[in-house]
Amino acid sequence: MPQQPHRVTLSPFPWRQNCAAAARLHRMASMRLTDWSSSSTTTSRLLPFSRTSNPARSYAVCPARRLLPMLPPNIASPVRLLTARRDFSASSVKAMMSVEACAKVIDGKAVAKKIREEIGAEIARMKSETGVVPGLAVILVGDRKDSATYVRNKKKACETVGIKSFEVCLPEDSAEQEVLKHISEFNDDPSVHGILVQLPLPSHMNEQHILNAVSIEKDVDGFHPLNIGRLAMRGREPLFVPCTPKGCIELLHRYNVEIKGKRAVVVGRSNIVGMPAALLLQREDATISIVHSRTRNPEEIIKQADIIIAAVGQPNMVRGTWIRPGAVIIDVGINPVEDAKSPKGYRLVGDVCYEEASKVASAITPVPGGVGPMTIAMLLSNTLTSAKRIHNLP
Amino acid sequence: MPQQPHRVTLSPFPWRQNCAAAARLHRMASMRLTDWSSSSTTTSRLLPFSRTSNPARSYAVCPARRLLPMLPPNIASPVRLLTARRDFSASSVKAMMSVEACAKVIDGKAVAKKIREEIGAEIARMKSETGVVPGLAVILVGDRKDSATYVRNKKKACETVGIKSFEVCLPEDSAEQEVLKHISEFNDDPSVHGILVQLPLPSHMNEQHILNAVSIEKDVDGFHPLNIGRLAMRGREPLFVPCTPKGCIELLHRYNVEIKGKRAVVVGRSNIVGMPAALLLQREDATISIVHSRTRNPEEIIKQADIIIAAVGQPNMVRGTWIRPGAVIIDVGINPVEDAKSPKGYRLVGDVCYEEASKVASAITPVPGGVGPMTIAMLLSNTLTSAKRIHNLP
Repeated sequence: MPQQPHRVTLSPFPWRQNCAAAARLHRMASMRLTDWSSSSTTTSRLLPFSRTSNPARSYAVCPARRLLPMLPPNIASPVRLLTARRDFSASSVKAMMSVEACAKVIDGKAVAKKIREEIGAEIARMKSETGVVPGLAVILVGDRKDSATYVRNKKKACETVGIKSFEVCLPEDSAEQEVLKHISEFNDDPSVHGILVQLPLPSHMNEQHILNAVSIEKDVDGFHPLNIGRLAMRGREPLFVPCTPKGCIELLHRYNVEIKGKRAVVVGRSNIVGMPAALLLQREDATISIVHSRTRNPEEIIKQADIIIAAVGQPNMVRGTWIRPGAVIIDVGINPVEDAKSPKGYRLVGDVCYEEASKVASAITPVPGGVGPMTIAMLLSNTLTSAKRIHNLP
Repeated sequence: MPQQPHRVTLSPFPWRQNCAAAARLHRMASMRLTDWSSSSTTTSRLLPFSRTSNPARSYAVCPARRLLPMLPPNIASPVRLLTARRDFSASSVKAMMSVEACAKVIDGKAVAKKIREEIGAEIARMKSETGVVPGLAVILVGDRKDSATYVRNKKKACETVGIKSFEVCLPEDSAEQEVLKHISEFNDDPSVHGILVQLPLPSHMNEQHILNAVSIEKDVDGFHPLNIGRLAMRGREPLFVPCTPKGCIELLHRYNVEIKGKRAVVVGRSNIVGMPAALLLQREDATISIVHSRTRNPEEIIKQADIIIAAVGQPNMVRGTWIRPGAVIIDVGINPVEDAKSPKGYRLVGDVCYEEASKVASAITPVPGGVGPMTIAMLLSNTLTSAKRIHNLP
């Protein structure tokens, strides 16, 4: 689904009711997941990147009651913001919030665009100097519309940066053996540096078996347990970091959000987003807590966070009252909720109630236009990294 | 070091001062670690097991102010305890605490003995029915006294349960290649089902390189990143779970401590204990937080825990005031502190100030006699599991 520029618009509902209404509509649409901890497969799965100079103005995660507006980053559209400082009193903040309190918008679309440009420039240089062109193979089984859209977007993104695309589309009733055969061919193909099997697979296939068949050197999704193990261990380095959580952390980096020593709460513990996001935050010396479907007091724990990464697939689950003033919010959820006013009949909302949260947080990703575009950018980055490693390039 | 039966004795110091004095003495002895997050290599590394009927009386992790004495488990020595119930008022608890408030002692020595007996019985049966005898190989490099003691204890424990011991002792100045050669031989030896390289290795050796050489099927320590990755991922199963954290969870199981939905705080994030312990707790649906050397407010976070696993190598770091009344404490630390009254000139204390904590917690492991003996028992268990898997036995 193509990402549209995001604008914060005022709803005809009072903000609190609006989130509640959206959640209610979502339930009516029967899209609710029974265990939101494993729902992140709905997130699109994409590519990699390398850090460069930071275009955003620096700002720190702030404790409650100490906020100050700052200059917007030059990568983001000019949004008035509510950010950290040590020298403001609670009363002045309250006054600000009542007038025009609005979190900085973490513009994933703009950051992803910048990263794609950086990757494109690096690939062009690599090609001219060494002749090497990174290649990414995608295997799609079945005819799910959302999967087809993701694959099309990935292909388009590859073309933009100069990565060669390989694609195999198999019918829904294909045998597992057929998928394994294609994986094996891509494993052996020296022009392919990344292999991606679009999830979910048809129910008659063993996902674990198929994912394990992807060569660890070409596992640009970073889902191989060996990569996850290396991610978890101090002193070890994974070959690839899973794209969506990598994108989350990259947004924090690009917006100069301090992670070290901060309280970070990850909402959701999926293999694809929540768990690796927590491991990444811990690698950067955050103090992490992981909230999931069995957590008895999510609100109480989330309220302690300086940084929140929400990845549960529950529309508007995290409310404004659950957020510590000044917290930074990365919202991974992309949930369709019914919307009669939209031409499509639905709109997309995150796991965090944006209208409420943007009045309390110091910075927040919009949905869409936040983490979504970053996932694709990270997939491109991982593919470039893989090509450089395989060809032993600096 | 042989484990002695543990008795809670009153110190000549007031309890608070006693912990402070121990910590001071420890600092004087210059044994302090600069970053306590990586200190758990001081913990002995041992073996595996399988759950059976639980001999301990059931009790729940309790919220503050709701405590009640309960019957002691038949595996533990009769210790008066302070445990969970829903129907006691704060005043009655206060009264109890002022008279003889004392946490249940989680008797690792007794539990480990029981597990060894279970393992011994299973091995005897296996041998008589199939002729298979589990084998464990230990490689020791250098002449560290503590390492030699650990290896001796492991060998002794193996003999007790009927596991065949293989041992290689190499001089401090051995080449890495020499160690790798022995690992390779044990990898190929069908009578060896578990291989253990005693850590720490001499500084000229690459620990990661050497540990990676151990066949994943014989990695009874569970330190291979593939095992850690599988431990981290939902829906995946590790071949082996690292022994010390496995022992911690086993103690909770044997004492019927409810884990699901509880707040668990792991203090320390080492690859050997803290990190895998957190992953294990999360697999059992606890809500985990990980406190480490960069955490700014450890006291505040630890105070929220229903279950605390402390593995940092800092004597008496966690004080009584840091503990929520009724919490369950698993103390992995084994820290020598100077003690002029001891014949050896030192005594061992945990990472938790026992005198203080035992007045607040509902249950606590002593040091020594808590987690230590469990680690060896878990190593034996992992070796048995490995033999059964390799020989395809039920």
